Amino acid sequence: MKSEFKFHHDIRVRFADTDLQGIVFNGNYLTYYDVAWTEYFRELGLTYQKMLEMNADTVLARTEIDFKAPARFDDILEIYVRVAKIGNSSLLFRFEIYLQGEDRLLNAATSLYVCIDSKTLKSTRVPDALRSLISELEGTTVNRE
Amino acid sequence: MKSEFKFHHDIRVRFADTDLQGIVFNGNYLTYYDVAWTEYFRELGLTYQKMLEMNADTVLARTEIDFKAPARFDDILEIYVRVAKIGNSSLLFRFEIYLQGEDRLLNAATSLYVCIDSKTLKSTRVPDALRSLISELEGTTVNRE
Amino acid sequence: MKSEFKFHHDIRVRFADTDLQGIVFNGNYLTYYDVAWTEYFRELGLTYQKMLEMNADTVLARTEIDFKAPARFDDILEIYVRVAKIGNSSLLFRFEIYLQGEDRLLNAATSLYVCIDSKTLKSTRVPDALRSLISELEGTTVNRE
Amino acid sequence: MKSEFKFHHDIRVRFADTDLQGIVFNGNYLTYYDVAWTEYFRELGLTYQKMLEMNADTVLARTEIDFKAPARFDDILEIYVRVAKIGNSSLLFRFEIYLQGEDRLLNAATSLYVCIDSKTLKSTRVPDALRSLISELEGTTVNRE
Repeated sequence: MKSEFKFHHDIRVRFADTDLQGIVFNGNYLTYYDVAWTEYFRELGLTYQKMLEMNADTVLARTEIDFKAPARFDDILEIYVRVAKIGNSSLLFRFEIYLQGEDRLLNAATSLYVCIDSKTLKSTRVPDALRSLISELEGTTVNRE
Repeated sequence: MKSEFKFHHDIRVRFADTDLQGIVFNGNYLTYYDVAWTEYFRELGLTYQKMLEMNADTVLARTEIDFKAPARFDDILEIYVRVAKIGNSSLLFRFEIYLQGEDRLLNAATSLYVCIDSKTLKSTRVPDALRSLISELEGTTVNRE
Repeated sequence: MKSEFKFHHDIRVRFADTDLQGIVFNGNYLTYYDVAWTEYFRELGLTYQKMLEMNADTVLARTEIDFKAPARFDDILEIYVRVAKIGNSSLLFRFEIYLQGEDRLLNAATSLYVCIDSKTLKSTRVPDALRSLISELEGTTVNRE
Repeated sequence: MKSEFKFHHDIRVRFADTDLQGIVFNGNYLTYYDVAWTEYFRELGLTYQKMLEMNADTVLARTEIDFKAPARFDDILEIYVRVAKIGNSSLLFRFEIYLQGEDRLLNAATSLYVCIDSKTLKSTRVPDALRSLISELEGTTVNRE
């Protein structure tokens, strides 16, 4: 539900994103979520470079994706993003995609990202500075789930 | 576990599949699974064209993906594929990816495909002919899960 | 040179667009040009649907691309687009890519698109309505090259 | 013409490679050429890792692509590859794509790759060892063009 989210980022579907069924190829939703994830961090004031500097590189560890209805070429998609839970070394993201201006859910994902050291690739604790920034954006709901 | 599968298809990781972390970008695993899915049906004697003719077009409805360890450029990936369950209008696929010749699981997915009418896009019953072909390949285990 | 162009469209480089060299994979520039091409037609008041309706579906027949300098993750690219020449059944596009706010050319392409009938895929004459719209945007320079 | 080539590599078109026109999206040909380029070097006994070790990292500097006829889902494409010319710091590749077992040219490209130092990204001389390996595969024709 859109109202659960404080942030969204819009993406227009590219011709190259479609396949011969005339709809967006399924793998491209992970690209859309990745873009929206990047923009969520930019909203927090964090570029990828700054995240590396605060030792908060991340990798996607697990995702669940529901394909409710197809997106098509030239559609403007609103990608809603929120952090549902902050773990010791992980961030649980929730994503939902709606056609611009509509309330019908097209696609949804729940994705677990793990903070890693970009050199050793081992998991690291979510930095306190990152916890603060996320909590500030999301309000008090993050750690209660 | 490789021994649960009757079929696998090998894919070599392309340079274009990697990202600046030096590993395969997460969305590309859905492409790998899609390719292996196509080859699974070819193993059954079914091209996409034949599937359309038997009114068995499909769409991906839901997927869960576990990213256990990254794949890298030039790796040869063994993509294992099996149908875990045949529902009324759906096929539940299980996929696992291993580095060629190794037993360490890199990536795994459970994906629900729904049979649709390619014109109306409404769900249709899994054709009996398709049920037979799958059961023949998989043995007796398909409908018991 | 930016000043030769009446139109540009900005694209931010996605993580998925990069490869293990840490730069944008070469094939993705054709996607960027395709997006900018779509936006050029939108600037003319034409969606893809409207182009189909005026019997002006197109295919890319030939392209020459110069890779002057690499683009990187998170860069904002200004994609400049103009029609350099309108032939009987073809449109010659010129594209140039600059980092936002900079004058150093990163990438350039000259691409020949051919108008086709979307059913027969045979080449068709560039519709007069399209010629007018392009000439209006570009000014008097289009047919002189 | 196939007979000009000593090497080819086959690629089957993936569902994800197609677009809503039902044909391979133009940018994907650069991916196909990149894969075939990698396999050409493997034929020479060179993995990307070995090329880095012989200080022969490369970047694509320029390409010209002719889109003669579209490739479609599930087509098996024969990607022919040869080095047409070895310059001081560059390799000129010629690529041609045919449907498996047919003589009709679908796509062709001429691509200039420049050897670079992978740290400084500055152009370097084509290593003698690489010149020898290529000349051995191609025969006496390489330096005459």
